[in-house]
Amino acid sequence: MCREEGYVKLSIEGIAARAGVGKQTIYRWWPSKGVVLLEALEREVADSATLPDTGNIVADMRTAVGNLIKRLADPNFGPLVAALIAEAQHDPTLARMALERFVRGRRAPMVERLRQAQQLGQLPASLDLEAILEVIFGALYHRLLLRSGPLDAVYASFVVDTVFAGPSAVQKT
Amino acid sequence: MCREEGYVKLSIEGIAARAGVGKQTIYRWWPSKGVVLLEALEREVADSATLPDTGNIVADMRTAVGNLIKRLADPNFGPLVAALIAEAQHDPTLARMALERFVRGRRAPMVERLRQAQQLGQLPASLDLEAILEVIFGALYHRLLLRSGPLDAVYASFVVDTVFAGPSAVQKT
Repeated sequence: MCREEGYVKLSIEGIAARAGVGKQTIYRWWPSKGVVLLEALEREVADSATLPDTGNIVADMRTAVGNLIKRLADPNFGPLVAALIAEAQHDPTLARMALERFVRGRRAPMVERLRQAQQLGQLPASLDLEAILEVIFGALYHRLLLRSGPLDAVYASFVVDTVFAGPSAVQKT
Repeated sequence: MCREEGYVKLSIEGIAARAGVGKQTIYRWWPSKGVVLLEALEREVADSATLPDTGNIVADMRTAVGNLIKRLADPNFGPLVAALIAEAQHDPTLARMALERFVRGRRAPMVERLRQAQQLGQLPASLDLEAILEVIFGALYHRLLLRSGPLDAVYASFVVDTVFAGPSAVQKT
């Protein structure tokens, strides 16, 4: 329904009507339309946090972030993530759920792989892995939310290389 | 008015009433309440993009990003930037104006200083400076919008060091 009419026009009434149930049935399970959107997006991205394992953590992150940016560039997906983040600014419950589930939950397998690489000495032992992912995802959200440039493979590699290899290894985008 | 009641309750009618003018007078100069907010924020941050010049570009960026993060952590300022970004998701005109003025306009002096440092050989000549700033600001917006951690000096230094010095120079936050 978001894809048809945009998130702003989405309503609990409309969701209930489409599902053929009463409004109260929706409210029984979801406190707001923002949470409905959150769960719908969660199902769509359930598989997206899986990382390849070639033994080269930077190459694997480049692949994973490249896959992720493709999703964000999809007009059927990216704008819904943007709508979710926007809605969370005015809905503290949704903000907490989005942080817990969409951000931390989804990233957990990625943190796990980074930690393995750290134990193998491929990354500095002192590196704050959650914070590193905030920098990477933040860079993607910047382009998603502020439309400051294309969400493409070149940018994905630029971001990963900047964060893991430092500026000397970075090529001009 | 946003600070008193929150952005959601802000209306052109309310702005006109507070200013003691008619609604049409507001609409004559500002197409939407989002643009009023954008201009109000622009005036408040007019000075914030100035960089110190100690000759050490990474130290100067650490100072500048540290100052910036203090503004974003201020409950009288950060939530208004968040509201602006949120509103831009549903208002393409505002999105374009925010990108042009709030993002690109404000960052222009910073890009200029980075370019000087590049010419002096303090940064790699191939470095995409606009993209580097997207990574830095994106990391700040991640914490602002997703409340994933404190907007403090430790994080500001972490982000700047990650981007300019690479992970080996980074300390645990």
